[in-house]
Amino acid sequence: MLNPFDIIIFGGGGDLALRKLLPAMYRAYQEGNLPEGSRILPTVREETQRAEYIETAHKALKEFLAKDEFNAKDWKAFATFLVPVVSNVTAPDDNWDVLKGILDEHDSTKSRVFYLSLPPAVYGTCCEILSVKNLITPTSRVVVEKPIGYCGESAEAINGKIAEYFSEEQIFRIDHYLGKETVQNLMALRFSNSLFENMWDAKSIDNIQISISETVGLETRAGFYDKAGALRDMVQNHLLQLLCLVAMESPHKLNANSIRNEKLKVLEALRPLIGSDVDKNIIRGQYVPGDLNGKIVPGYLEELNEGSSKTETFVGIRAHIDNWRWAGVPFYLRTGKRMAKRCAEIVVQYKKVSHNVYEDSVGEIEPNRLVIRLQPEETIQLTLMSKRLDNLEMQLEPVTMNIELSQAYSNGFHSDAYKRLMLDAAANNPSLFIHRDEVRQAWKWIDPIIDRWQEKGKPALYRAGSWGPEDADELLAENNHVWFNTGDKGA
Amino acid sequence: MLNPFDIIIFGGGGDLALRKLLPAMYRAYQEGNLPEGSRILPTVREETQRAEYIETAHKALKEFLAKDEFNAKDWKAFATFLVPVVSNVTAPDDNWDVLKGILDEHDSTKSRVFYLSLPPAVYGTCCEILSVKNLITPTSRVVVEKPIGYCGESAEAINGKIAEYFSEEQIFRIDHYLGKETVQNLMALRFSNSLFENMWDAKSIDNIQISISETVGLETRAGFYDKAGALRDMVQNHLLQLLCLVAMESPHKLNANSIRNEKLKVLEALRPLIGSDVDKNIIRGQYVPGDLNGKIVPGYLEELNEGSSKTETFVGIRAHIDNWRWAGVPFYLRTGKRMAKRCAEIVVQYKKVSHNVYEDSVGEIEPNRLVIRLQPEETIQLTLMSKRLDNLEMQLEPVTMNIELSQAYSNGFHSDAYKRLMLDAAANNPSLFIHRDEVRQAWKWIDPIIDRWQEKGKPALYRAGSWGPEDADELLAENNHVWFNTGDKGA
Repeated sequence: MLNPFDIIIFGGGGDLALRKLLPAMYRAYQEGNLPEGSRILPTVREETQRAEYIETAHKALKEFLAKDEFNAKDWKAFATFLVPVVSNVTAPDDNWDVLKGILDEHDSTKSRVFYLSLPPAVYGTCCEILSVKNLITPTSRVVVEKPIGYCGESAEAINGKIAEYFSEEQIFRIDHYLGKETVQNLMALRFSNSLFENMWDAKSIDNIQISISETVGLETRAGFYDKAGALRDMVQNHLLQLLCLVAMESPHKLNANSIRNEKLKVLEALRPLIGSDVDKNIIRGQYVPGDLNGKIVPGYLEELNEGSSKTETFVGIRAHIDNWRWAGVPFYLRTGKRMAKRCAEIVVQYKKVSHNVYEDSVGEIEPNRLVIRLQPEETIQLTLMSKRLDNLEMQLEPVTMNIELSQAYSNGFHSDAYKRLMLDAAANNPSLFIHRDEVRQAWKWIDPIIDRWQEKGKPALYRAGSWGPEDADELLAENNHVWFNTGDKGA
Repeated sequence: MLNPFDIIIFGGGGDLALRKLLPAMYRAYQEGNLPEGSRILPTVREETQRAEYIETAHKALKEFLAKDEFNAKDWKAFATFLVPVVSNVTAPDDNWDVLKGILDEHDSTKSRVFYLSLPPAVYGTCCEILSVKNLITPTSRVVVEKPIGYCGESAEAINGKIAEYFSEEQIFRIDHYLGKETVQNLMALRFSNSLFENMWDAKSIDNIQISISETVGLETRAGFYDKAGALRDMVQNHLLQLLCLVAMESPHKLNANSIRNEKLKVLEALRPLIGSDVDKNIIRGQYVPGDLNGKIVPGYLEELNEGSSKTETFVGIRAHIDNWRWAGVPFYLRTGKRMAKRCAEIVVQYKKVSHNVYEDSVGEIEPNRLVIRLQPEETIQLTLMSKRLDNLEMQLEPVTMNIELSQAYSNGFHSDAYKRLMLDAAANNPSLFIHRDEVRQAWKWIDPIIDRWQEKGKPALYRAGSWGPEDADELLAENNHVWFNTGDKGA
């Protein structure tokens, strides 16, 4: 069992804190994973907000927890863990001393987790004040949420600033996709089943697809998004991280350092896409008005309320990992807004059987496929060919064996990526967090793509409610592949 | 669609015909697989039996079909296919001319299937009369049920006698285990999934177990059984046939000739067990009274009502196939009466993962396992290791992905091994029937075992309701293996 800890949530009144971080801690409490003696200290800017915070939290939990999760008794108990405090990251005033006083009430060896639910631009300032005010103890850690920066240089600047006050071991860079149970299970499946690990290479696998599609458009993030685009917002962090976990070599021990080292090796082996290679291997897109689930939705420019923008809302990439294991295997990465379905999944497409022993009449022998789905539901599916059973003749058809993870939960346990990651940070377990070297290496691969796009071309247009621009289908057609689109026939 | 055929069931009033063959044909009718213009001609010995036969069949179908299968309308239609005839295989009298007259009413190219549901001792006589009375046309076939003979020599004599009147292409030796849908699907799984066929060898598989356990004792077969024993009754035919299908090389085309050739190669590669090797690799057993499902049942000798008998009611074998694919992989064969559970299954036990990347706390990493169950229900199960979901820690547990075949049937299709095999014989498709060479080769492997047993030792005793004698467990323990017992923990 975890030791008691204090977690200070900067931006405690913000959207992330109320929607995700408080529900995560409430679930930890409900499952018995929030140790007695722990404290949750959300920061707000004003004393009036502090006075109202318990009620604010109450409302948020009622709204964002599932109906069977929230109940008055647990809320009452959970509320005793909450200690709202006032602090302003732009002013090193007395409020910080109050916070320090509260933290110092407890033993100095108690874990302190500073969760910066703040814009990356103020990470440095916040860390500086924590240092100046002597809040950083040897058992303190800081959690920051990616994406960090707009390019390699700006990311390096932010990471450098944090590093002035925290050692790399104390810095926990979060990517909430890595906190999903299915991502954990992806590693469990790979490394504890000979059936998978012995067939996890270019000899056995034809191609791998990693896809995160959203149905939402810009929502309230227009200002941020139009500057960032899908490449920075989704590819640089989430997609490359998932790619690393799928493609990494098996470490000798599955501990934090080994995992990070193996992930870094994948990023280093990723074939650079520079200049015209960007045009040949990456499709960017931008949505125009279209029909999404029977409703006409506006295009990107309408939502943005601008006459023009080159910002991509879709990216489709053909990547290669130049090492022994993956030589010649395309890794297709895709993400987009206003797509036909909301889905995040990793699709491992095996090779065809090497020889067809059947007569033509048995039907097509589709290759085996492993689908690891992260959302909307968490499932793992293995598709095999089997004999049709309603027929005496030998006729084959694909059957899907399903591990429906969301149904497999017992005793009220809820999969919650933030819960896992916050508790991991409190437990000083950095396995699922991202090392500075990984951030650096990811940007090193991304920067030349951005450079090329700035000097040449523009996004292809796609209808909202589609699976992206046709160019993306053509990209795969060049290798005789097709995108695996959830819900399609055969998918 | 199959052409119309005539099937003559010798022994039409017998147990097999009433319990299995008529229900099989009724199902074929119900599914639309009994071609219009076909005739089913069960033979009986007396005219009175003939007159009553439709009523006999009516009762039998009501009793032996499932409730949702039998209905008056289909029965009425099916009854029109039934043409009971009188004939006595010990006397070539006029009744045979009557049968000939009925058959000759139809075109001489119509398929004739002579199904000998008779004791093997009269196969020869029956075939002789068929020949003398000119009933055998070029499109005639004869179906005989194994086991044929008591040893290689007597089997050869029976097969030789049949061969005087029918060519090998016309002889269909049935083994009803091979008619099961799951056996068909075993081949489909192997040859249409790279995930299986690429890991179907000594490099990937640790051991394979084929087990047919019965809970019944002697029933009404005491006289026959005490002369035969489990080795002749079950191993020589069913277990060796299943072994062949699991272990055979992939043919270039999955047609009858290729399958039979590949099966024969397995029998030829089976390492002979002779002399003291029999004692070292085979355990025979005989049941004593015991507790079966909460009921005390008598022992073999009590059922037999004899003071002593050396007949084995249990056999456990460690076999090896000396070829490139299977070098060093033990094949464990087991069958027994009065066992703890009724079950027939093939268990493919994969090797452990080559290296454990986890800390000790994650739990044991059990190797992958594929279970192909033929009875009581037909299922295919794949057991993988997965992360436990009720726990934030990495803890592994086995999960079983299930293709429950019996549930997967749609549109009233029922799995029925006899139906498939009778229709295959009518369609002249010998894929699932046994070639004379296979019978010869199987006995060649069995004969020395019987010789050894006659000269030395006696069966180990086991309690009714157990999984056989302890010696059988020790046999596997020598290789650090354990029997997979359906229903056991972890099984």
